[in-house]
Amino acid sequence: MEKLEQLKTRLAEVMNLSYASAVLGWDQQVNMPPGGAAARAEQLATLSKLAHETFVADETGKLLDEAAIEVKDADYDSDEAALVRVVQHDYDLLTRVPTALVQEITRTTTLAHETWAKARAEDDYESFAPSLEKIYDLMRQKADALGYEDRMYDALLDQYEPGMKTADVQRLFDGLRKELVPLVAAIFERLDKVDESIMHLDYPEDRQAEFGLMVAKKLGYDMERGRLDKAVHPFTTSFSTNDVRITTRYYPDYLPASVFSTIHEAGHGLYEQGSAQVLEGSPLAGGTSLGVHESQSRMWENIVGRSRGFWRYFYPRLQALFSEQLGEVDFETFYRAINAVTHSLIRTESDEVTYNLHIMLRFEMENDLLEGKLAIKDAPDAWNAKMESYLGITPPDDTKGILQDVHWSSGLTGYFPTYSLGNFLAVQYWDKALQDVPSIPDDIERGEFGSLLSWLRDNIHVHGRKFWPAELTERVTGEPIQTKSFMRYLTDKFTDIYDL
Amino acid sequence: MEKLEQLKTRLAEVMNLSYASAVLGWDQQVNMPPGGAAARAEQLATLSKLAHETFVADETGKLLDEAAIEVKDADYDSDEAALVRVVQHDYDLLTRVPTALVQEITRTTTLAHETWAKARAEDDYESFAPSLEKIYDLMRQKADALGYEDRMYDALLDQYEPGMKTADVQRLFDGLRKELVPLVAAIFERLDKVDESIMHLDYPEDRQAEFGLMVAKKLGYDMERGRLDKAVHPFTTSFSTNDVRITTRYYPDYLPASVFSTIHEAGHGLYEQGSAQVLEGSPLAGGTSLGVHESQSRMWENIVGRSRGFWRYFYPRLQALFSEQLGEVDFETFYRAINAVTHSLIRTESDEVTYNLHIMLRFEMENDLLEGKLAIKDAPDAWNAKMESYLGITPPDDTKGILQDVHWSSGLTGYFPTYSLGNFLAVQYWDKALQDVPSIPDDIERGEFGSLLSWLRDNIHVHGRKFWPAELTERVTGEPIQTKSFMRYLTDKFTDIYDL
Repeated sequence: MEKLEQLKTRLAEVMNLSYASAVLGWDQQVNMPPGGAAARAEQLATLSKLAHETFVADETGKLLDEAAIEVKDADYDSDEAALVRVVQHDYDLLTRVPTALVQEITRTTTLAHETWAKARAEDDYESFAPSLEKIYDLMRQKADALGYEDRMYDALLDQYEPGMKTADVQRLFDGLRKELVPLVAAIFERLDKVDESIMHLDYPEDRQAEFGLMVAKKLGYDMERGRLDKAVHPFTTSFSTNDVRITTRYYPDYLPASVFSTIHEAGHGLYEQGSAQVLEGSPLAGGTSLGVHESQSRMWENIVGRSRGFWRYFYPRLQALFSEQLGEVDFETFYRAINAVTHSLIRTESDEVTYNLHIMLRFEMENDLLEGKLAIKDAPDAWNAKMESYLGITPPDDTKGILQDVHWSSGLTGYFPTYSLGNFLAVQYWDKALQDVPSIPDDIERGEFGSLLSWLRDNIHVHGRKFWPAELTERVTGEPIQTKSFMRYLTDKFTDIYDL
Repeated sequence: MEKLEQLKTRLAEVMNLSYASAVLGWDQQVNMPPGGAAARAEQLATLSKLAHETFVADETGKLLDEAAIEVKDADYDSDEAALVRVVQHDYDLLTRVPTALVQEITRTTTLAHETWAKARAEDDYESFAPSLEKIYDLMRQKADALGYEDRMYDALLDQYEPGMKTADVQRLFDGLRKELVPLVAAIFERLDKVDESIMHLDYPEDRQAEFGLMVAKKLGYDMERGRLDKAVHPFTTSFSTNDVRITTRYYPDYLPASVFSTIHEAGHGLYEQGSAQVLEGSPLAGGTSLGVHESQSRMWENIVGRSRGFWRYFYPRLQALFSEQLGEVDFETFYRAINAVTHSLIRTESDEVTYNLHIMLRFEMENDLLEGKLAIKDAPDAWNAKMESYLGITPPDDTKGILQDVHWSSGLTGYFPTYSLGNFLAVQYWDKALQDVPSIPDDIERGEFGSLLSWLRDNIHVHGRKFWPAELTERVTGEPIQTKSFMRYLTDKFTDIYDL
């Protein structure tokens, strides 16, 4: 397979440039002194330009065509067939959008980011509106360039969740909304059942860090192939299957931020560390989609990390570190506090129950804005009306409303749904894992996370990007993505917590 | 100047790739988990290949020729003339050595490094000898490719100290030897005059780090454009004039290691941070040679950092941090302890007085090995004989003798002399600074380092690589490099400390 080997050599150069960018990006968020910003932007621009040029060159397309012939009889599951299939998809995505449009999007979003940050700080949507108008115009051009059959949004969504259609997401959300909105309303009637004030005490950062590190290691995150650092916005990045970095943040007066950010990022990190070693350095290493990635982080964060079993093991250890704050707090009070549902207006601070309503709102608005059904100037009212309708709360200002997220100013239209897809998939994968390995809950109570991790490794992580998300879910669970498992999980858990 | 602008654009890409490599290199030594090593080597290989290819391309040579015509009437001191001049030098250096030879050197030294590390650990020079034989053969080929008029060593030395000749170094060392060897012998008779045992107490790392950071900031190292981290081998690296990273190491039972490594690296860092902002991102940013770089690190480390004036300010602060260890130790005892001369066999652990004799030995041996006057098999005996002759001590084994340094296994023949050149220049620059700004010693006693730093900025740092080291020294001091100032400094200082 001579051409396939030539293709691999070419891709290795692209991957090395991309990994180098990732190192520079990690450093920028974790270590870089303020003075380094301007030069770093130049360095990243050079690296991404070279990676892009090398990848989208006609030579790559030619090698892909030739390699496709070489692997045409290869098994669908083989690494060779998967490589050609996945790289062809990436190549199509990147070559369809004209360079001039890519540059225009980069230029516009770079400026828009500044404008947005200022508008958010000053609660001034009007000053951001022209940027958003321009971005949506560019998003429409991008969707046209990428191509779509049904909905314009399909083209954008596919960048983050390959194969997923807008209509599918709509159907999932429609089903969810019917059951979720009444559940949220019922819980909101009984918020006083849970007191989370113990979370807002003085929790020294060094002890939070000690606890987070202990948890990450215990879950199976390999510190020989990764590290845990501090960042303003927690994230996970990889420079290899064997060098996966996670980050977290510490609030000195609010414990859950670090604990659950660390578990969440460790979930992403475990997925990245779990790709088969044979895929190392190739475009097949890593996660198959943002949705599947989020299924891993949310499973560890919520299904495992906010469960009674998990804390049966960890709570005594947490109490030992914070005896003054938690020594006298009984297990049930703690368990309920970490699962408290709140009237949060902010997506990133919202709980398991309300989270997907925030996403649903964004998904609907992105479609309406994209298809011209909603005018940019009317967007704040639409936002607030949806908040009232889904969550029964109205933002007092746009800073806590439509201006809260960075995504739109960055040109990430189509990204939000993957958060919800991840939440739904997490429960489906979890159910299947328990079906295959019934000891998992008991293992977790004993602080043994290897049985769950092994199942995830064998069924999900090891494949890297070899299978499209929908294929993977079918292979793993025998069914497509759905919301009934998620709704059942939520209903059971919160009926208990809130005595519904 | 259209061609000059095109040249600058091309060089910016090369610089961005080189800076990206530097970030990856820094991360490798400061943060990288062990698992990341293999992938990191691949990433660095891709980046250096692309940087090299882009730089040595015929197009660069063509643009250089064209730009040279555009700047032919420009003032010698102008940034434009300097850029063409310096880049032409770099281009010649890198294009004269055939790619096949570069690759052979890389391959050989990569393997030789492993062989050397094992040989050093096992005191087995014979196992390293064949690698060294091959490396010297390659060094001869490299010198031939680079070209030289007088001595073969000239070609290699010029890579690290542009314009410096072997005969000049020989002359400097010959002059030095005559005076230095008797001084060392006299001090060795009186080693019991200084007791440095207080340096070998228990010094907790966190307090060492706190002290080092305080000192670096006080000297003027800008933390908004840099950071201080921990590394096995302290080093300084830059990703921009505005992002300069220094590192240090901590020995829990030996205080001077971190204190003087931090000051030394801060000296390098101050030089890098001091390039004119107009040179930012161009090949003219940074230090003009390894020798001049070392003059900065050694001035801060030794002339400033091991002076009474410096410690008049810092010793009370150090005592406050280590009251148990140093609270009862009087100033003079401390001052003498940090200036103790020892019978060290190891270059990196040797004091100001003996240090240059270690370099002289290496310089002479490198020449003899290169010119075939000394056989590889006879090198250990030659080493030991010189140690006896210059320092009056004989290594008990090759691990503490000829195998101690990493340089030869890495193909860095010609590098060692720059350490001594830096020591000589440090005193010359210092003398001139005091002549221009007589208040400097008093300022230092009051913890004010701005007057010295400003002088260094204006006279040395700001120029970056615009002037060759010999030019710079002439411009700054009005004379060429010499050793009499250094010898006077040493003699005065140690006559006092050892009551000679």
